[in-house]
Amino acid sequence: MSIVVVGTLAFDSIQTPFGRVERILGGSANHFSMAAHYFTSIKMVGVIGDDFPQEHLMYLTDRKICTKGIQKIRGKSFFWEGLYESDMNQAKTLITELNVLEQFNPILPADYRQSDCLFLANFDPELQLSVLDQVGAPSLVACDTMNFWIERKREALEAVLKRIHLLLLNEGEAKLLTGESNLIRAIKKMTQLGPKMIIIKRGEYGAMLYFQGTISILPAYPLEEVRDPTGAGDAFAGGVMGYLAKHRNYLNEHIVRRAMMYGTVMASFNIEDFSFNRLKELSWKAVEERYLQLKQVISL
Amino acid sequence: MSIVVVGTLAFDSIQTPFGRVERILGGSANHFSMAAHYFTSIKMVGVIGDDFPQEHLMYLTDRKICTKGIQKIRGKSFFWEGLYESDMNQAKTLITELNVLEQFNPILPADYRQSDCLFLANFDPELQLSVLDQVGAPSLVACDTMNFWIERKREALEAVLKRIHLLLLNEGEAKLLTGESNLIRAIKKMTQLGPKMIIIKRGEYGAMLYFQGTISILPAYPLEEVRDPTGAGDAFAGGVMGYLAKHRNYLNEHIVRRAMMYGTVMASFNIEDFSFNRLKELSWKAVEERYLQLKQVISL
Repeated sequence: MSIVVVGTLAFDSIQTPFGRVERILGGSANHFSMAAHYFTSIKMVGVIGDDFPQEHLMYLTDRKICTKGIQKIRGKSFFWEGLYESDMNQAKTLITELNVLEQFNPILPADYRQSDCLFLANFDPELQLSVLDQVGAPSLVACDTMNFWIERKREALEAVLKRIHLLLLNEGEAKLLTGESNLIRAIKKMTQLGPKMIIIKRGEYGAMLYFQGTISILPAYPLEEVRDPTGAGDAFAGGVMGYLAKHRNYLNEHIVRRAMMYGTVMASFNIEDFSFNRLKELSWKAVEERYLQLKQVISL
Repeated sequence: MSIVVVGTLAFDSIQTPFGRVERILGGSANHFSMAAHYFTSIKMVGVIGDDFPQEHLMYLTDRKICTKGIQKIRGKSFFWEGLYESDMNQAKTLITELNVLEQFNPILPADYRQSDCLFLANFDPELQLSVLDQVGAPSLVACDTMNFWIERKREALEAVLKRIHLLLLNEGEAKLLTGESNLIRAIKKMTQLGPKMIIIKRGEYGAMLYFQGTISILPAYPLEEVRDPTGAGDAFAGGVMGYLAKHRNYLNEHIVRRAMMYGTVMASFNIEDFSFNRLKELSWKAVEERYLQLKQVISL
């Protein structure tokens, strides 16, 4: 079962306590795909400028990640510059240049539209709605969002939430969306907005899953060196969705919990190096080994 | 196997988003004992002023908590006033009146000295050393500490760390003690200071255990209402130590992980109400039920 992912392809300049990198490859659709393609085939939708390296698209194609949905527009690609200080959980945005993203109007190629599995990364909820209008009735639609949209486009966001199955967002976003400082109460309120499954991302503290009335909590995989947290949430989503799509079973609690473990594993690889460099070089054996190590960390 | 606990008995005035309470019962030795006595018998050491309610000592005695080691001194009991704002993980100290605690010189009654299990709550490491000098060779010595001692009495604290088996402290303290911003590296450094077991308390995110080269992570029990986090760390320690003392087996990873689960359970009860009110009224059945619920939350 392939996954359609709609999101950004970007250049990132990032500074962390471990160094500074200029204009490396980033973007939600990239981080997601680089994690998810270990589980199933991926169809990407996004927009790039004419400065985006052709080699990367070829690299994706080699990995059987379909790039037909990536539009190339005259102009510069989306650019983000961020800084992580000692707290690696929180990036400080220094520069955001939307560039071609301002003209982004996601159009799904015909063969994408019957896909059974869709991930809407964090972007304008009005465009998320437009994507939802282009697909049939996928069995699994998941979305991410951020404070900016919660504050500025609440109505469109609420319309999106009514049409998805799984909402992924971080703690601060969950609290802002619901006005609740307690996560359990925030989850209860969010289920009333539509999604039947909710995953709250908690950075180095892991993730919390709400599924059919029960709460599961998973810690992050403990790492001695976190080089760059950028894209961790998207790589996490890639692992979760990848596992679910592979197993074609979205309503089994056991499967969903396992999916969250694979999300955790893929996020841990993502943050071990800048960009998605570590995700590029993985073997399936390395993924399975870390899965077993994570199991060890949480076992009684 | 009984546990000797050395710590404070206090009056606390606390303000949280749920209300304000004046001069309720608190103190590390109290919170610890109220959690640990569900597992084994407790011998308390501490100091109170002549304003401390006799009924509380009688209440403890009724619960088979030995109060012989509690010295009564002319003057006022230790008083702390704190404020929790929307972030219930972090108290803001408004007032600390040491009062009789300034004259605290812990003396263990003769029948306490052969105890096999000792918990040194957070107090002056020079006094922690004096307690260690009074005991034989307990199989399990655990201690807690805080930033104040890490910064001001580092030498004495390091002498304590050489003589204990289990160190319990929170994330910020672990980072301050080691100068490491990464917890796994902080743990590695701390093991070089002495303790073979380390538990890092992470508030609403749970706890991390280091034991014989392996890391285990446990989330906190998810609660919809946290009324007052004061004493959660001591109630957690009470559950951990209580379980270990009951099972008389401190070197089995399985047992230590279970102990951490019971610590988590007891901490969750502690924070559901002000003071240790919720811990007062528990049944063993309620403890076991929550243990099973926690198991469910973390199960795959």
